[in-house]
Amino acid sequence: MAETNPPPEAAVVELLGLLAYAELVAFDRMAADARLAPDLQRRAVLSEMAAREIDNYCRLADRLRELGRDPDGAMRPFVQPLQEYHEQTEPNDWLEALAKAYIGDGLADDFYREIAGFLQSPDKELVLDVLHESRFEEFSAAEIRAAIAADPKVSNRLSMWARRLSGEALSQAQRVAMEHPELATLVLVGSGDQAALMALFKRLTSAHSARMTSIGLNN
Amino acid sequence: MAETNPPPEAAVVELLGLLAYAELVAFDRMAADARLAPDLQRRAVLSEMAAREIDNYCRLADRLRELGRDPDGAMRPFVQPLQEYHEQTEPNDWLEALAKAYIGDGLADDFYREIAGFLQSPDKELVLDVLHESRFEEFSAAEIRAAIAADPKVSNRLSMWARRLSGEALSQAQRVAMEHPELATLVLVGSGDQAALMALFKRLTSAHSARMTSIGLNN
Repeated sequence: MAETNPPPEAAVVELLGLLAYAELVAFDRMAADARLAPDLQRRAVLSEMAAREIDNYCRLADRLRELGRDPDGAMRPFVQPLQEYHEQTEPNDWLEALAKAYIGDGLADDFYREIAGFLQSPDKELVLDVLHESRFEEFSAAEIRAAIAADPKVSNRLSMWARRLSGEALSQAQRVAMEHPELATLVLVGSGDQAALMALFKRLTSAHSARMTSIGLNN
Repeated sequence: MAETNPPPEAAVVELLGLLAYAELVAFDRMAADARLAPDLQRRAVLSEMAAREIDNYCRLADRLRELGRDPDGAMRPFVQPLQEYHEQTEPNDWLEALAKAYIGDGLADDFYREIAGFLQSPDKELVLDVLHESRFEEFSAAEIRAAIAADPKVSNRLSMWARRLSGEALSQAQRVAMEHPELATLVLVGSGDQAALMALFKRLTSAHSARMTSIGLNN
């Protein structure tokens, strides 16, 4: 397993490049979404969430440079799929923006947490460190729960939105896996075998469903 | 002077509210301007610059809460003038975005550094701490100098742009002073007298001119 056979550096560089660009573009989108906030206080929270993505970007870019890679080059292959994800999931209002942060970041964090298990130090710790802070998750969850409590119809609308988010995330993830066999191999080899990989996907799906339910959305 | 007669708390709250909203809106605008960057590396630098504004916002909002004030309420009176400033100075390209950061932040920092002298601890230190980091200033200056070296015509275009920036900043600053006599009084009383206030404005103007010259722009 990962501890005994280190993953090839090329795959690690691809992973770091993917993560770095994901942070950079998440920053950009969240910063724009903050304008949807109903007041300055809430706008500041989403802006702060966005700012944390840039701090994480810097750490990932530093690590890429340490490995002798140019962050630009490492990120470039992931520009298209991540851009498409965000273009297909542009929030129309504040609640959609929060649901996107909550659902999307939750799914991404679960996935990266699994992958971190296949890495060695210091990349393992780095990937775990750049996961999202739970206080932002709690903020988004509380806002969505309050909105549903005030108007139960909101639940249906956001449930549909969440399905669109996870569908689009899945289809871009498949595309990345197809275009980056080394990255796909990292996940497959890290898992151990096909059955373990299926179990991993099942864990991701269950956690996603649980997250939906916990804020009052239905799968 | 400020050390012996502390400025009225209402004026300090206005100043902190102005600074806090300036950071929040600067974050928003810089995050958007980062999209103008010619490559991912440069985009990341402007994004990081934006992220620092949010860190500063958080510190200012915390201080307002410590003073028993609601950051939202303290910021609200400054939404209009700052929004107008940014609407009138929306950069059309990467160099205009950098010149805006360089000229605008430089002018603002000089002004806040002067005002910090009229405050007492801990607000004095807080205002000095939230000034912009010089490494960003150096980055913008280097980019602009390189662009002018590559094409001297850029200097004229950016000089005109810089005059628009300082003109708009001045007109919104005058508006803020008119609408917030306590804030204006803080500056006047802090300066000592009318002559000292004129000297302060002269210092700001000279530093602004020197900044323009240092990157190859003419006043």
